[in-house]
This record gives sequence, C-alpha cells and structure tokens, in this order.
Amino acid sequence: MKKLSPAQTAKTEPYRHTIISADLNLRLDTYELNPAKIKFNGPKGWHIKKWTLHGGKQEDVDIIEVNNGAMRIVICPTRGMGIIGAEIADLRLGWDSPVKEIVHPKFINLLARGGLGWLEGFNEWIVRCGLENAGAPGKDKFINNVGDEAEMDLTLHGRIANTPASEVQVIVEQIEPYRIRIIGRMFERLLFGPKLELLTEICTEPGSNKFRIQDTVINHGAAKQEFQLLYHINFGTPLLEKGSKFLAPVQTITPINERAAQEIDSFDTYPAPTPGFIEKVYCIIPYANNDGETMAMLKNASSSRAILLRYSTADLPCLSLWKCTNSPEEGYVTGIEPATGFPHNRRIERKFGRVPALEPQQMRSFTIEYEACLDSSSVSKAEKEIENIRNNRPIQINKKPPVIE
Amino acid sequence: MKKLSPAQTAKTEPYRHTIISADLNLRLDTYELNPAKIKFNGPKGWHIKKWTLHGGKQEDVDIIEVNNGAMRIVICPTRGMGIIGAEIADLRLGWDSPVKEIVHPKFINLLARGGLGWLEGFNEWIVRCGLENAGAPGKDKFINNVGDEAEMDLTLHGRIANTPASEVQVIVEQIEPYRIRIIGRMFERLLFGPKLELLTEICTEPGSNKFRIQDTVINHGAAKQEFQLLYHINFGTPLLEKGSKFLAPVQTITPINERAAQEIDSFDTYPAPTPGFIEKVYCIIPYANNDGETMAMLKNASSSRAILLRYSTADLPCLSLWKCTNSPEEGYVTGIEPATGFPHNRRIERKFGRVPALEPQQMRSFTIEYEACLDSSSVSKAEKEIENIRNNRPIQINKKPPVIE
Amino acid sequence: MKKLSPAQTAKTEPYRHTIISADLNLRLDTYELNPAKIKFNGPKGWHIKKWTLHGGKQEDVDIIEVNNGAMRIVICPTRGMGIIGAEIADLRLGWDSPVKEIVHPKFINLLARGGLGWLEGFNEWIVRCGLENAGAPGKDKFINNVGDEAEMDLTLHGRIANTPASEVQVIVEQIEPYRIRIIGRMFERLLFGPKLELLTEICTEPGSNKFRIQDTVINHGAAKQEFQLLYHINFGTPLLEKGSKFLAPVQTITPINERAAQEIDSFDTYPAPTPGFIEKVYCIIPYANNDGETMAMLKNASSSRAILLRYSTADLPCLSLWKCTNSPEEGYVTGIEPATGFPHNRRIERKFGRVPALEPQQMRSFTIEYEACLDSSSVSKAEKEIENIRNNRPIQINKKPPVIE
Repeated sequence: MKKLSPAQTAKTEPYRHTIISADLNLRLDTYELNPAKIKFNGPKGWHIKKWTLHGGKQEDVDIIEVNNGAMRIVICPTRGMGIIGAEIADLRLGWDSPVKEIVHPKFINLLARGGLGWLEGFNEWIVRCGLENAGAPGKDKFINNVGDEAEMDLTLHGRIANTPASEVQVIVEQIEPYRIRIIGRMFERLLFGPKLELLTEICTEPGSNKFRIQDTVINHGAAKQEFQLLYHINFGTPLLEKGSKFLAPVQTITPINERAAQEIDSFDTYPAPTPGFIEKVYCIIPYANNDGETMAMLKNASSSRAILLRYSTADLPCLSLWKCTNSPEEGYVTGIEPATGFPHNRRIERKFGRVPALEPQQMRSFTIEYEACLDSSSVSKAEKEIENIRNNRPIQINKKPPVIE
Repeated sequence: MKKLSPAQTAKTEPYRHTIISADLNLRLDTYELNPAKIKFNGPKGWHIKKWTLHGGKQEDVDIIEVNNGAMRIVICPTRGMGIIGAEIADLRLGWDSPVKEIVHPKFINLLARGGLGWLEGFNEWIVRCGLENAGAPGKDKFINNVGDEAEMDLTLHGRIANTPASEVQVIVEQIEPYRIRIIGRMFERLLFGPKLELLTEICTEPGSNKFRIQDTVINHGAAKQEFQLLYHINFGTPLLEKGSKFLAPVQTITPINERAAQEIDSFDTYPAPTPGFIEKVYCIIPYANNDGETMAMLKNASSSRAILLRYSTADLPCLSLWKCTNSPEEGYVTGIEPATGFPHNRRIERKFGRVPALEPQQMRSFTIEYEACLDSSSVSKAEKEIENIRNNRPIQINKKPPVIE
Repeated sequence: MKKLSPAQTAKTEPYRHTIISADLNLRLDTYELNPAKIKFNGPKGWHIKKWTLHGGKQEDVDIIEVNNGAMRIVICPTRGMGIIGAEIADLRLGWDSPVKEIVHPKFINLLARGGLGWLEGFNEWIVRCGLENAGAPGKDKFINNVGDEAEMDLTLHGRIANTPASEVQVIVEQIEPYRIRIIGRMFERLLFGPKLELLTEICTEPGSNKFRIQDTVINHGAAKQEFQLLYHINFGTPLLEKGSKFLAPVQTITPINERAAQEIDSFDTYPAPTPGFIEKVYCIIPYANNDGETMAMLKNASSSRAILLRYSTADLPCLSLWKCTNSPEEGYVTGIEPATGFPHNRRIERKFGRVPALEPQQMRSFTIEYEACLDSSSVSKAEKEIENIRNNRPIQINKKPPVIE
C-alpha cells in the first residue's frame, strides 16, 4: 500500500498517529488522545478514543469516538469507516434499527436472503454503498477471467460497508482551524476484478457543529473501472417525527415505483410511525448554485432542529429520498442519499448512463459537509440558503415511475 | 437490548454474573464458579467454568461447562447456546460427528453445498434449528423491502446454531432446590426481516441426573412473524447400538419418503453401524397425558441406560425421528427431534399449517426436560410412564409418505 | 483427531513443538526457534518465527517464517498452509497480486462473484486448490443427505486455501541432513460429505537452495471419496519478464480454449506486461524418466535465474500452464500447475477420467521439490536434465481446444 502523502507542511507539524495498519502489522486495541497529551496549541475540551467491542456479533469490532467538545461522532473502521451515529447538545443523529449490535463483517453473508444479507448489519447513521456496485441486488454482467461476459449476483448496496479499514490514522493540526482528522483506507481489489480504494477523511474542528467527510475513490488498476457510490444517511427520532420536513432545491423528482408514485404529492413531509408502511423512494436531481453546490436538509416538525448537507452536484448528481416510516420496532427511518446514481441495480443504472468509471490510476473525490442546526434561526437561515440555490427555478414533478427494464 | 427481568425476589438473592454481553461490551475469556466462591448455602461439589477455544476452526469459540456434581453439560454460546455434549457416570450423551472441531460461525457459509453448509459445523448433542426457518433448504417466498413477494433460498436448519449469544448470564439460586441456571440470548433481527429473540435458560440442580432447557421465542417486531423451532437431539454410542430402541406414545407415524417407508415396520429399533445406510426420517405425532405432557426415550440394547425427554405437545406437536446408522466414520447417529413442525422446507410446512406465527411483542416458551436413566429399574419405570401416556390408545402407522408438492 | 505418528526413532530425538492444535486447545501468538535455543548439533544460521498479523483483512492471520540460512519461506497456516512467498539471495519467489493483504478466510465468501470469491484472497506463491474440487466454478452433481443426486455450485479452486490448519508442528532433526520440517493438517469433513484430510510437510535443510512439500490426502470416511489437488505455483517479476521461458518435457500440449489456441506456437515464452492481456491456459501431459519423475522450470530472459520443480507424474499426471501477463497493476503472473487433473469444472474432469478417488481409509501422497537456480551454469544443467527426461521423444501439439461439453 502506498503511504499517505503529508497533507500540509506547516512549521507546526500536525500530530499524526496510525492506529490500524495492515502494512505495519498494527492494530491498537485502545487509544486515547486529548489536548494535554500533545501540548495542543488550540482550544481544549476535545478528545479521541478508540476501543474494541466485545460480545455477540460485536466481537472484535473497532470503534473510534471523536468528540470535538461540542459534537460526538462515532466511527467504525471495521465496517468501512461508517458513522454509527453522532450527538450534539440534545440532538441525536442516527436511527433505531432493529439491528442493535455493531455487527462484525464475519457474521454477515451478503448473499443471504436473496442478496439482502447487508440488512443484517445495517444500523449506521451514515453508511456508504459501493464501490463496485451500490444499488439493488440482482444479476449483472461482468467480464470473467477468460475474457468472456459472465453474470454475477450483485448484492444489496455492495461490499464497502462490510470491508474493514486496512489503515486508520489520526491527524490533529496544530494551526488554525486546528482540524481533527480521521483518515481511513478500504480496498476492493482482486485479480480479474476491480482495484479500487476508498480513502476517507472525516474532519471536524474543536467546538464545531459541523464535520466533513471527504472520500476519494482511486482506481489502482491499469484498466478503466466502473464504480458506484451512494451515501445512505439515515435519520430516526428526534429529527424524524410527524411533521418533519425534507428540503432541497429539487429540479426533478421521480417516484421509483408505483407505490412511491401514490404519495408523490407529500414526498417532502413525514407521517408519524405508521404500522405496515412500505418504503417509498424518490429519485431527485437537485439544482446547484453557481459554485456547483447544493444542499439537502431534514428539519423537525417545529423547525427548531435540523441537519444540513452541503455537497457538489458535479460529484454526486443524484439524490434519493428514502421514506420508511414504519412502526418504531420495524424501523422508523428516512434516508437522504446523495450518490453517483440511483439505487436501481447497476445494469439499469448503466442503461441510463449513471455508472461512472475511472481511468487507470484516476481518482475522484466526494465531499459532504454535515451541519447541525440547533435553533429556529439557524434552521430558518438554512432554508433561505436552499431557496437561494433554487433561485425560483421550476420543480418538475414526475407522477409516474420511469420505465426501467 | 432490554435487560433480563429478575426471576425471583427471595430474601436470599441468587448469585448472578454476566459473562458475555454486547450491551455491556463484555466477554470474559475465562470464568470459574464453585460453591466456595460465593458462600453457597446448598450442596457442594458443583462448578461452572468458561473458557475460550483455540486452533483451527475452533479459534475464539466460547465454551461453558456446567458440572452439577453428577452431570457435566458443555454449552457453546458462540454456536447459539447449543449443547455440545453431556456426561453422567459412564454415560456419554452426544455423538461422533465427522466434524471434530467446535466450528466458529465465521468459518461456516450456510449457503454452501446447495444450502447444506450448516453440516460443516454440525456435531452437537442438542442443536436448535430455526428461528426464521428450521427445515430443508430450498426456495421459499418472502416479502422484500418494497413490499413485493420475492423468493429466497432457505438454508438447512436455519441460522440460530451459527448465531453467537449476545448475552450470557450465570445464575445460582441460594434457596432450594439451589438451581444452577445459564441464560443466553440470540437474535435474528433486521430491517425488512424478522425481529426474533431466542431467550434460553439451561437449568439443573446440584447432584441431579436431569436438566431442563426452557426457550422463549419473542417477536420484537410490530408485525406478525412466522417462526420455526426444531430440537435436533442426537445420539451415538453408547446409547445408540444394535438393538437400541426408541420409545414414545406414538399416535401417528409417517415415513418422510419412499426410502423411509421401506423400513417403517422397524422404525423403533436400530441396527449396528451399516455401511452405506441412507438416512430415514419418520414424522410422528405423539399422544400426551391429561396435563398435555409427552415423553420420548432412547434406551440401549440391554435396557440398562436411557435418555428421557419430557415436554408439552401443545408447544412442540411434531416429533421427527432421524435414523442415520451409517459406519462410525460416516456418522452413526439418531436424532430425536421435537419441533413446531416437520423438517420439510418451510413452504411445504406452511401448506400443512405447521408454521406458527407470533403476534407483535408476543412470546412463546418451549420446555424440554432431559433425564438420564442409569439402571434397569429407572429405564423400566420410564417405559411404564410412556405406556401410561399412551393409555392403550391406537397407533396409526402410515405406510406411505405424504404427498407434499 | 489422530495424533501424528513419530517420523523417526533416531537416538538423537528430533526437536518437536506444536504451535497450533485444535486438539490441545493451543495456538501460540508468537514463537521463535533458532539453533541456540535447542543445543542444535548441525549448521547454525537458520531460524523459525511465528507471528500474528493485524490490521484490515489480515487481522488474526498466522504466519510462519522458515529461514534455513539461505532461503526464507513464508507459510500461512490460516490459509491452508499456503506458501506466501520465498526469497533466496536476490531472487524473490512469488508475484505481485492486486490483493496486498494476507486475507483471513472470515473475510472471504467463496460463493461471491458467481463462485469466483476465491480471487479476493489470492496472492500466494504456492496455493493448493482442492480437496473436494479444484477447478472452475459451476454446477456439479453430488449425493445429498437423502441419497438422491442433487446439484451444487462448486466454487473456484475449492476450499482448502481458505481452511485454517487445525494442527501445526515444528520438527527439527538432530541428525544429518538436519531437516527443518513444518507439519500442518487441514480438514474438509462433514456428515453427508467428504471426510478428507490434507497432511502437509514443508521440509528444507540448513543452507539449502531447495525445499520440498509432501502432501498426503487421506480419506477418513468409510466410503469411496473423489478428490482433486492442483498446485497453483505463481511467478511474477523478477523470474517472469519479457523473454522468460517455461521448460518441461512436454509430451502433449492442448490449449484450453480458442483464445489460448491462437498463441499455442509461443506457449513457452513470455511477453512483457501487456495491457489488456487475457489469460491463456495450456494443458500439458509431461514425459517422465524411468523413475517416473518429471521436471518443470521457469527461467528468466538471460537464463541466469530459474526455479525448478521435480515431481512424479504418477502422482500428478497433469500440468497446466497459466499465462496471465497483463499490466503489473492488473496482474503480471504465470502459474505452473502440477495437478491430478486440469482446471475445468469437476463434472468435465470426471468425464475425462481425471478425478481420482480414495478408498475408505486410503491415502495418497504428492511430493514436489522446489529448487532455485541462481547462476547460468545451474540453469543450464537443469535444462539438460529436462532434455534427458524428454530423451528425444516427440511433442504432440494440439492446435485446437478439446471438445468438453
């Protein structure tokens, strides 16, 4: 594995510590960092902790907690650097999955349940889907070892969330804005298959109500390589409640199937938990501002709390809205899902030209900034930002699902 | 996970110790308990030990030994709280599987071998089959995430035997009868799937020749949920030998297929190891006594040793008898299998109305008491008990297998 | 498991140490042996080390290094006692797979990618394929539990490379030639399936440029049992380069498919890395000398370095030559593959009579000696040996692939 290149060359060198590395044959069972330990120049009150989970399906799972003094973010290297959850003030970011443990990939068989085995570990706040494929299970073609077109069963949302990080580094910068960064690297690589890396950086600042995930997908192969990336960002209570609202500068919105079509008129509002509710997915193309940036937001019923995503539509042109407001025991959850495409099977996405590819040695980065709004005025300000991005341009609402097969 | 509610409120509090808990991020590598350690009021001479296995496919497997002073019971939390084996005096309870290691689920792929991957870890004395499905592999329908009927490949005997316990507690009561109890909890839970718990209590008393397994299946979901439960209780030598006999108050017995039909007349006796023997399964509905209780028994050729099961036919109406008396190297074994149904694929069991379901938040308990008979008089007494349950009612022997498809 | 029988009864007892044993509930995290530690009578300068890998998909993988003073051999018990690589002087034996980590089997799903999941861990120098099946994925029949012919999906190259050793022993002999031996045992065993053992001995001598692998496949069952064994011996740079040459006393050679047929005339020479190259496989029956021994060799372009294999054609009658000279990033590699058959799916191999079987309790041994040639004269001498085996007998070159279906 190539080493990470240094991110800055300031006089005041950032603190760096590798806590997991297949290269270095290293995995720390526990680790703790705080300002006192490194003669930190900046604001105090933050810490980073790493521990290992035990018991049941959690056995041997690595957990990293980043507490920037205001916000607590829980990262799971063993599950592809997914974000289990976060907290800021009284706001919990995440959801209540029927899956209660943070499941080690060794207990997951992605092929189980007709390719839906991924669901047996699914309880993250932010979970990446990808890299070779990111959408629905089902058959797709590929080129096999003898150069022939063959068929394989894609599994739901791909493998990256069940791939342990091969390297994890902690970086704390000693100059303003005193960024705290967690770097992770996962690989999907094999002979006669992709040679893809996902290099992720989760970055926040002391005392901030924001953090940023910058992911870089790298094709280490010598051939052009398709990939897919979808951010499955999931919310339950308290942000999700009767009357919660989804906001984005929607350019076009299309229901994914007939069932979703029936409720297209209320796509942006949420009911209370509804026993027997069946998921509805809406495929959205958002507008961007002149800088190419867009926003998406989920706010609670009283508009006093919200989460805000900012990202570039050039990177992530497609936005899926997943509404799954069943009973709390079954899963009361919504997903806001910026992605390179929509969550159809890859063979369908390819037909619509939504499966990007990387040239040999090429890389592409994807950045999403997450901001928590903790009072009405910041929620209101964010709404205005979204309105400004839309800038009075029309919304096209397609009442019918697309013809896909 | 909800905490276990206290089982009693005696003045003399029972000793309780959690040795595995995903909730508490806890897993003890080793643990040992004996009367001296807890100022025990009752009989001495018993102990409980927990250790971890190493080497080959056993790596990281948890084992609990309960020795009540007379009987030694070996439990495997890593394999769904299955009972690996037991011993009392010179009687070994268990069998000699071709699988010699106690295999960690991480080395098992249930989908392998056309859905027969379960066999690669199968060597327990008592192994539960379930919870979502318990029988033969093959396709069955299910409702997928978008609310449509889809098809999945069920795997042989389901997943519970390859599911690690998320919580294990030791309880020793300080009042008569000074019960020693091991509690375990396993889960089959996911979005768009079952939310089932199996709460098991393995209970014995100091110096006893009996123990009891009480399992409770709980539907934590908000929707009605099918389940299946089959106790695969397996015997090899010394109980199984030429001339061993199976006894139960049989009401009806039906061979599962043509091959079993050919030997229906000798269903209750066993041959010596028979090279090339192909398994024969008989589907039995037993009679119960006025309290709803039934019994099943396996005794050796000289009627000097036996194992006796007592349970309620309301809980477990179906009893399969599995005869697999091949060469010792191939597997000389018989299974006595009380269950909610027979071991056909679930789609067939459903057709015959033998797939129970739990309402939201409903639970059902299943209790089997195991008793070892170590001399002729106790064997003879148990036979009389079985005769009393039958109470001269007729046996219906179906000579033909049922039409199932 | 039966204990290993003592290999010799010399007055000077060999040093023996068990470092992994499921039987003994033993797995050493680290281990180190050198002449000083055991009052070694023979040449100094060698050592054996065992350690455990950490990080990413390597977590918990066992590694044994045998350094005989001249040659360093790296063995992986967790991956079926495969040889990760070796080094002697400036000669590296192995290849640069896109898979960089030594992947724990818990992260491998052999059924993934249409049965090509094996590739996700494939980076060994010497990896065994087998035991139940060794070739291409696809359907084959088997006899299931009820004695009926059923169908299962075979997976690429079988399971043995993803099966952890259940026992590993180090033996160092105290008499000439002071052999250093690593013994390992893996099992494929289950009810209603094979009961096969692979007992391997990797043996070298202090200061030697050679080592030997002797594998014994044992049928512990009471029924006749098919098996397959293929040694996938893989080379990248420096041995593989533009102008490298494959040498063997070829009796017949047949391209495996049309694509291989197109380049049959240059089957024994290698191009530089060739972007987009698609693998070509040639199926060879080699000649043997009067003792039944044959040889195969890969030499570099300048004929100054080579690796030489010696083995018996009675044991391993078939030799596949795998040419896969794609870009370095995709995999620039060739495989020399002595085997019991060719790498077609087992159902095809069976049709051609190339699937051997073991009678109950029967065993068969397979020995390959590996020799590194480090100068032109030893390379040249080896070439003459190969010529002598051929002894002017004709080569039959089939220009067309066989009709297999």
